[in-house]
Amino acid sequence: MSATEFHQSVPTSEIEQRIASFQSLLAEAEIAAAVVVQSADLYYLTGTSQNAHLVVPSEGEPVMLVRRTLERAQAESPVRRIEQLSSLSELAGVLAASGLGDGRLGFELDVLPAARYLDYARRLPNHQLVDCSDLIRSIRAIKSPWELERIREAAAMISGVDERMREVFRLGMSEIELAAEIEFWLRSMGHQGQLRMRSFNGDLHYGTITAGPASALPGGTDTPLVGAGLNAYIGKGASASLIDSGMPIVIDLIGSSEGYIADQTRCFSAGSLPQHMVSAYERSLEIGAEVSAASRPGVLGSALYELALEVADDLAPAMASGTRVSFVAHGIGLELDEPPFFARGWDRPLEAGMVFALEPKFVFPGEGALGLENSYVVTANGAEKLTSAPEELIAL
Amino acid sequence: MSATEFHQSVPTSEIEQRIASFQSLLAEAEIAAAVVVQSADLYYLTGTSQNAHLVVPSEGEPVMLVRRTLERAQAESPVRRIEQLSSLSELAGVLAASGLGDGRLGFELDVLPAARYLDYARRLPNHQLVDCSDLIRSIRAIKSPWELERIREAAAMISGVDERMREVFRLGMSEIELAAEIEFWLRSMGHQGQLRMRSFNGDLHYGTITAGPASALPGGTDTPLVGAGLNAYIGKGASASLIDSGMPIVIDLIGSSEGYIADQTRCFSAGSLPQHMVSAYERSLEIGAEVSAASRPGVLGSALYELALEVADDLAPAMASGTRVSFVAHGIGLELDEPPFFARGWDRPLEAGMVFALEPKFVFPGEGALGLENSYVVTANGAEKLTSAPEELIAL
Repeated sequence: MSATEFHQSVPTSEIEQRIASFQSLLAEAEIAAAVVVQSADLYYLTGTSQNAHLVVPSEGEPVMLVRRTLERAQAESPVRRIEQLSSLSELAGVLAASGLGDGRLGFELDVLPAARYLDYARRLPNHQLVDCSDLIRSIRAIKSPWELERIREAAAMISGVDERMREVFRLGMSEIELAAEIEFWLRSMGHQGQLRMRSFNGDLHYGTITAGPASALPGGTDTPLVGAGLNAYIGKGASASLIDSGMPIVIDLIGSSEGYIADQTRCFSAGSLPQHMVSAYERSLEIGAEVSAASRPGVLGSALYELALEVADDLAPAMASGTRVSFVAHGIGLELDEPPFFARGWDRPLEAGMVFALEPKFVFPGEGALGLENSYVVTANGAEKLTSAPEELIAL
Repeated sequence: MSATEFHQSVPTSEIEQRIASFQSLLAEAEIAAAVVVQSADLYYLTGTSQNAHLVVPSEGEPVMLVRRTLERAQAESPVRRIEQLSSLSELAGVLAASGLGDGRLGFELDVLPAARYLDYARRLPNHQLVDCSDLIRSIRAIKSPWELERIREAAAMISGVDERMREVFRLGMSEIELAAEIEFWLRSMGHQGQLRMRSFNGDLHYGTITAGPASALPGGTDTPLVGAGLNAYIGKGASASLIDSGMPIVIDLIGSSEGYIADQTRCFSAGSLPQHMVSAYERSLEIGAEVSAASRPGVLGSALYELALEVADDLAPAMASGTRVSFVAHGIGLELDEPPFFARGWDRPLEAGMVFALEPKFVFPGEGALGLENSYVVTANGAEKLTSAPEELIAL
């Protein structure tokens, strides 16, 4: 991006297609219009993430009402009607003037703060406020060829993790020292730094870089591995603990390009590992191979989760996805926690164009954790792997 | 933090004092109990940020109901009653068993997602759900001596920014290359990486590192400076643009310790700067000096904002706080956007123990931006500066 001017980066055809898909789902759900305010959804539907309300009627032209900054939104987005919203009190008037003075109005209720929801409800007494997040998320789950290219770029960013580890790893360094070196490498390649999760209280910093017993520590997040973190406030990721001989090292990284992400985990060891850990890592490769081979359009996410547990077999009790969390894959895109989920209860079929990160991981309390993670796209012929770092367990 | 076990880091006396203060505000507001779920508030009131519901009755013993992970919550928190919550459906029963079967129930409505709010409302039909965020935030705004020590540590982390800049700056490097070097330095010193904001869509990555025209670009965030960012999704902070001779360089950094943060901005130049920029920087020093000298208990935040504009005088039209944003200082603690605010309309008095970051900054569109930022604590005798990097404009 040039320093002195803003420009459009998401193609106009992408935005038009996304809006059209959203509009047909709104019409199907008998929602008169949606009011979109969350960063990821806004960027997806407009190409900009300025502070704005995007009003998408089930038919007709959308209008983006910008609190801040109008000229940037206009430069970055191909949406035709982009106007200043000086005060929230104008919203009802704009809706009425667009023939949307009453009826069902969609909001992103899974992320919209309750106080704002109650305020909208007061300001729009003639409307019924309903949740439209699932509609947006279901469209976002199917990636276009343009989005897939961005995710491939994000995957390419983290493909050299084995070389970087050989370069910077020293026995006795701390998790945080290692994290600093890996994160510097990503940032120097143009990593966007900030990553986003949709879930309440959800955040993360480049990924999870942990080793030995710290990798095996449980925490508050809905992830197979958590880590000790540097303090009890963050409570996850790299800590000050030292990486000793005989420890497995888990490098779970998120690459980025134009907001899109790819997710990959590779394992290393400081010296040689006990056989049960090596076996567990090999089992994670098997699970990755078998589950990805079965990830075809029409297959339910819940069935793929069960398949992972089956392949884990006797190691299922040590599998993070069988004990700590109830998923073995999550969708990725602009956020880290998108559909699809290969999870207990997620009884929805995969569709072509869905992108997921499959992460079978094993936890040995007091010892460490290991596992593999790759990002894939679902195609008519099965899942295609997008992340490409060498998969063998590398002794450093 | 040790790799193999969790431990308590926030002292028991801190937690007891915080809970007691919260309880008296709940009683005053006639709220029977609060149900706290947001990470920063949970960590503040319990010492852990595991996935939990903390139920604080207006009198009597609080109980923390943990979804994940019980043993970690128990190890990190001195709260006496810590129990497993297997399902949300148990919440009503726990409340009833504690004599809290009806009445006004406080939730953090400014951050709680609407869908969760509506779900609680359905599950708790005998209660009236009210907002208790302001109560928690007003307690959190007054820092204890223990918290001040943490903020001093956070400030110490960023005190050597001038040396680091002399070490790593090269003419012609990009903003993102410079950011990578600065962030590596912070992370290597044990920076927690992840930072948290309370506001919807709010996030940031270590701070804001920009230079020249890119520094002057406006965006969607409620901050004096925004920057181009690496893409339109993040839309702020460092970009790929190059730092050329004659450009001002703005290094706005957040240090961290045990979750607490300090905020500081220093300016550098690649070669010499035009006189109007040097004058603006000098004016930011004057505003910093005069406004901090006036920041005594009892003075209104809005009055200090007006004072900043007065001292800016003829430069007020270029002052970010007069044009882009309506504040010149924000509180800091576990989040970057805490009370107090020196802002238009923030008609509340300062109190001893409040910690704020004062950031008078000037924007010259097409050229660049400059300004100073320091963190202070309000004492009975005035504001004491906590951030200590050299304040002169340094030519590199």
